[in-house]
Amino acid sequence: MNYQRSLGGDLVRDGSPAASGLSAASFSASELSTAGVEEVERLYGGLADDVRRLIDVTIRSAVDEDRVTQARALVRQAERLLAEQASPEPAGVHFNREGRSWDWGNAVVGVRNAIAPPVVVVRAPDGTVSSEVELGAAYEGPPGCVHGGVSALILDHLMGETASAGHTRVTVTGTLTLRYVAPIPLGRIWMRAWIADESGRKVTVVAQIGAGEVGTAPAVEATGLFIVPRWATDDGVPADIGSLD
Amino acid sequence: MNYQRSLGGDLVRDGSPAASGLSAASFSASELSTAGVEEVERLYGGLADDVRRLIDVTIRSAVDEDRVTQARALVRQAERLLAEQASPEPAGVHFNREGRSWDWGNAVVGVRNAIAPPVVVVRAPDGTVSSEVELGAAYEGPPGCVHGGVSALILDHLMGETASAGHTRVTVTGTLTLRYVAPIPLGRIWMRAWIADESGRKVTVVAQIGAGEVGTAPAVEATGLFIVPRWATDDGVPADIGSLD
Repeated sequence: MNYQRSLGGDLVRDGSPAASGLSAASFSASELSTAGVEEVERLYGGLADDVRRLIDVTIRSAVDEDRVTQARALVRQAERLLAEQASPEPAGVHFNREGRSWDWGNAVVGVRNAIAPPVVVVRAPDGTVSSEVELGAAYEGPPGCVHGGVSALILDHLMGETASAGHTRVTVTGTLTLRYVAPIPLGRIWMRAWIADESGRKVTVVAQIGAGEVGTAPAVEATGLFIVPRWATDDGVPADIGSLD
Repeated sequence: MNYQRSLGGDLVRDGSPAASGLSAASFSASELSTAGVEEVERLYGGLADDVRRLIDVTIRSAVDEDRVTQARALVRQAERLLAEQASPEPAGVHFNREGRSWDWGNAVVGVRNAIAPPVVVVRAPDGTVSSEVELGAAYEGPPGCVHGGVSALILDHLMGETASAGHTRVTVTGTLTLRYVAPIPLGRIWMRAWIADESGRKVTVVAQIGAGEVGTAPAVEATGLFIVPRWATDDGVPADIGSLD
């Protein structure tokens, strides 16, 4: 994590332009083939899955100090190995000429991000977007329940994906309103979102999240106003880059 | 992560009552002394810090397959060591007779949860709650920027802490409205929240989050309605257990 503050006060990432604004240039065209993308996802996605299990047991473990010390040494050794060659930059959002896009570091869907469950978004022919995911000990807020902010995090992402209409346009979140109806026990979670209204550059999306099987009563309901930024309505914007959430 | 589905369809955790509702009994009185709590936080908090660095480099690494394979073996070895003795339960929210409370698995502030940055909440004498935190590659949404849902996650938590008025009452999120004004570059983040209004069991909280130094223009503004649940207004409710977020 190498971030520097420029003299002007804007946060900049090492060797990159200031990220204080977003533009079409924020997205990186890549020479990586789709097969190459899938190879990286297999390799590092497996590692991220291992790290997810480590996060979970770090919360639940009750071993003695000696074992924790041993575990820490192993984790640090793994970190050093992986740091031997690493980008100073966050993962970003990339796309290739085959129309494949990837956002490996995304906090909700990033396959290389062990913070992300990750959510796998499913899009129905009618435009409805849905997913099911298992949320364990790392997503806790109230005792035994999903953190209310985690529901907000996941819904914001799902709604952004929905607003982007199958990754055919860029959208940013304008406003997001969440109504908390009931607590969600940790475990299996369902979610769905759909476009309720569209007008010019404004897209209104509605979403729900709940515990257990799809179709049970929603525990949190959300309405979001998403905007197609002016810069994304110009020519030269890469297609198939999805939402900005 | 051992969750089972009961015959009745409610999600239950192994060996625990159904968590489909919350009550005063959701909070666990503990015999652990405050010194004991701090010892666990030192030991496992250090491990969680190591795991946070591992999460970050798992996103940014560019080492070859051999090194990833070695790193995976080390991570799995650490996981097995920690799993030798582990609770099947999530961390929960606990308190002791000395008035100390702890929620080690909380997704925003949990010191044993490597998903949590963790945010360290500061409370001013006037009741204003604030914090500053560094958000790296694992919190990305738009390229180089904090995920909009991560801002929602953090604000929801901060606002819940604010509504709980120094952990003197239990509150749950009723509604949460977020206005996204500008993207937040990854890096140093500030946030603050305060009570705007109180009426009976309803508490209205306002919050802001932004990039860089405290006092710069907020990038996301939020208003939340928090509720003191009826069960928390009865006698016998443990004090000092904070918000339910």
